[in-house]
Amino acid sequence: MVPHLITALTGPINELEQRVLDSMPAIERWFRLEWMEHTPPFYSSVDVRNAGFKLAPVDTNLFPSGWNNLTPEMLPLGVQAAMAAIEKICPEARNLLVIPENGQPSSFYLANLAQLKRLFNMAGLNVKLGSIDPALKKTTTFELQNGESVTLEPVIRGKRRLGLKDFDPCTILLNNDLSTGVPGILEDIHEQYLLPPLHAAWPTRRKSMHFKCYEEVSKRLGKLLGVDPWLIYPLSDRCENVNLDDEKGLDRLQAQVDIVLTRVKRKYKEYGIKEKPFVVVKADHATHELGIVTVRDAKDMQDLKERIQTLSSGRKTPVPAFDFLVQEGVLTQERVNDAVAEPVIYMMDRYVVGGFYRIHAGRGADENLNAPGSSYVPLAFEHSTQLPQPGIKPGVSLPNRFYMYGVVGRLAMLAASYELEATDPDAQDYE
Amino acid sequence: MVPHLITALTGPINELEQRVLDSMPAIERWFRLEWMEHTPPFYSSVDVRNAGFKLAPVDTNLFPSGWNNLTPEMLPLGVQAAMAAIEKICPEARNLLVIPENGQPSSFYLANLAQLKRLFNMAGLNVKLGSIDPALKKTTTFELQNGESVTLEPVIRGKRRLGLKDFDPCTILLNNDLSTGVPGILEDIHEQYLLPPLHAAWPTRRKSMHFKCYEEVSKRLGKLLGVDPWLIYPLSDRCENVNLDDEKGLDRLQAQVDIVLTRVKRKYKEYGIKEKPFVVVKADHATHELGIVTVRDAKDMQDLKERIQTLSSGRKTPVPAFDFLVQEGVLTQERVNDAVAEPVIYMMDRYVVGGFYRIHAGRGADENLNAPGSSYVPLAFEHSTQLPQPGIKPGVSLPNRFYMYGVVGRLAMLAASYELEATDPDAQDYE
Repeated sequence: MVPHLITALTGPINELEQRVLDSMPAIERWFRLEWMEHTPPFYSSVDVRNAGFKLAPVDTNLFPSGWNNLTPEMLPLGVQAAMAAIEKICPEARNLLVIPENGQPSSFYLANLAQLKRLFNMAGLNVKLGSIDPALKKTTTFELQNGESVTLEPVIRGKRRLGLKDFDPCTILLNNDLSTGVPGILEDIHEQYLLPPLHAAWPTRRKSMHFKCYEEVSKRLGKLLGVDPWLIYPLSDRCENVNLDDEKGLDRLQAQVDIVLTRVKRKYKEYGIKEKPFVVVKADHATHELGIVTVRDAKDMQDLKERIQTLSSGRKTPVPAFDFLVQEGVLTQERVNDAVAEPVIYMMDRYVVGGFYRIHAGRGADENLNAPGSSYVPLAFEHSTQLPQPGIKPGVSLPNRFYMYGVVGRLAMLAASYELEATDPDAQDYE
Repeated sequence: MVPHLITALTGPINELEQRVLDSMPAIERWFRLEWMEHTPPFYSSVDVRNAGFKLAPVDTNLFPSGWNNLTPEMLPLGVQAAMAAIEKICPEARNLLVIPENGQPSSFYLANLAQLKRLFNMAGLNVKLGSIDPALKKTTTFELQNGESVTLEPVIRGKRRLGLKDFDPCTILLNNDLSTGVPGILEDIHEQYLLPPLHAAWPTRRKSMHFKCYEEVSKRLGKLLGVDPWLIYPLSDRCENVNLDDEKGLDRLQAQVDIVLTRVKRKYKEYGIKEKPFVVVKADHATHELGIVTVRDAKDMQDLKERIQTLSSGRKTPVPAFDFLVQEGVLTQERVNDAVAEPVIYMMDRYVVGGFYRIHAGRGADENLNAPGSSYVPLAFEHSTQLPQPGIKPGVSLPNRFYMYGVVGRLAMLAASYELEATDPDAQDYE
């Protein structure tokens, strides 16, 4: 199955595709030079949205799951990239401990764990899965529908090392974003490689910081390509310390929404874009029960305020104040069989190793698709067609479009690398 | 099309496949540690022969052509490996000059050049083709059947650098094995990276040296796997300084053939192998007009002597004395539609990036297939199935068999790395 790219995508996006393709060797060299100075995250996935007139990442995940959605054809690239990553970080590595999400694993998540295990096993590591969920008291084996099985063992913390019974890993890979906080069991591990580092997890990460870094790198890539960088980044602002119980805080949030909406409207006018501009409002840290809210106009803002008040009034203790990210909404104009779709790009080390479309039949083009009811179309990029095809008219070649998505995905990964440098608690000031 | 592996392949080869598969993480780690100490050749291809009871490389090419025979599905792996290779050698690289073979290029060779150009272009380099053939006086464009074109330009040698008109490369990639000698135009280039180094070309290389290094590394891998290393290496001996005009020299060659044949017979007896043992006799340096001669018994030896005498007597000046390699012949039991087939493994840097079967309908299982009339079946390893499938019975899984071929191919590449260290004229003695 091949997704139906909306053929009406003419204008800016096709010009961008053409420029990206024409600049391919320069782009690749630019990334190569960047990676000389900056360390890519161990692995990552990036949700990209293509509005037809612009293209931007909307979420960069540094603890990606969903590896099971990659096709078997993509796996060799993942294995090869994993080999390169391991070789750089700890070439003598023998045992790898993967730490999964807490909680009862879904069958999808178990398939993701099986895929990760396979991938690192083929890259030359003995792989075991060690849970930090206090609820997992003993070794538990889950059967998958395809006959495979996945075994989770409770981790054992020694004075200086983390491991399993009879398994002492030299490297620990987190597939758990620690959104409920960094548990003590992961602290003060200095003898083993812990990947990604703890400050890549949500207790430290802030979306506003990521998009600030992303804006910086996209301006530099935009210059290289000779395009307005707004074509590849979403306008973003932070609204700090909003107390949900406080009318003044909500007014500040509304003012911030108005500012971003105005800026988006100005850009739409500049490019003659007829779509209705919108912003998304989300917690700056991790996910929040408010979710990701689309605000198109004052009415939506009123809805948001009411939702906040309901949430707030239902509590015994007040919700602590927190920061919001107010971000330009990016429409997605991709469809798979009429369902709204957005590409998700998977990277291991500095390499794009695959991708798929996330589709959601029940959602609109201006809504978040990463929600219950979404499904995945891994075949969209089947047969490793991710290599560009120079000389083909923009907008009609899937590989060329995917190459462009891969460039934007890597740009978001590069931003994450800047972000991790800026937030590294152990960073030395070399200047 | 899938090749017909001879299903009668039971016994040693399937046991070897099982051991290779069971030891996958250990093998990958072993290679990883080797590459910490040794530099892989920039690119290479290895002809492998599977006799059913043993598996061995018979030729390691450090200037591989035939990249056009890799399927589009394999190309992303090649691009990713090229990125990794460039990043290590010269991350700031912008322009790459590829030096093709001398002589009028065949359509196959032009397709190879187009593929190499595409591959390095996608890895982020501006690529041009510069010929060192004195016969190429001006820029010449060749049209390919698929509508592509390939342009060769005569190289221009400055005092310190090699380039083209208006093209100053930082890196020069040889796709020319320099079998007629190293031209002065390539000497004393110290400002640019010349890959592979000149001592990887035939004026310096000796097959006996390669197979000596190969025997060394295969003994170490054999130990890791717990198998007799003879199962993965061909017995080889050098017969030095044979003067073709001199009866005594030919007698020495015969004695050497007898010694190797006797050793092979002993091994066949040990394993209860019913096939007729044979040796191949070839020049130790490059290719020679004598070609690769199969010797099964005294009659074949007599034929060889007569061929040598005919060759020698037809000359005005005597053929200079040279060294021969006398090597255990390895049968190939692979067939594609009844034609004798041998797998060829392609590597870029330390990574296996693809492979295909070379087939020759007119040749026997104990003959050299790399000869006029051969053809290629790139589909044999289609859809990147090179990832092993643990848990499948040995001898029935193409991916598992290909993984084993990839291990042997990489072992030959590792041997080439040892060989290049030993023959490096600039090597410092660090001990």
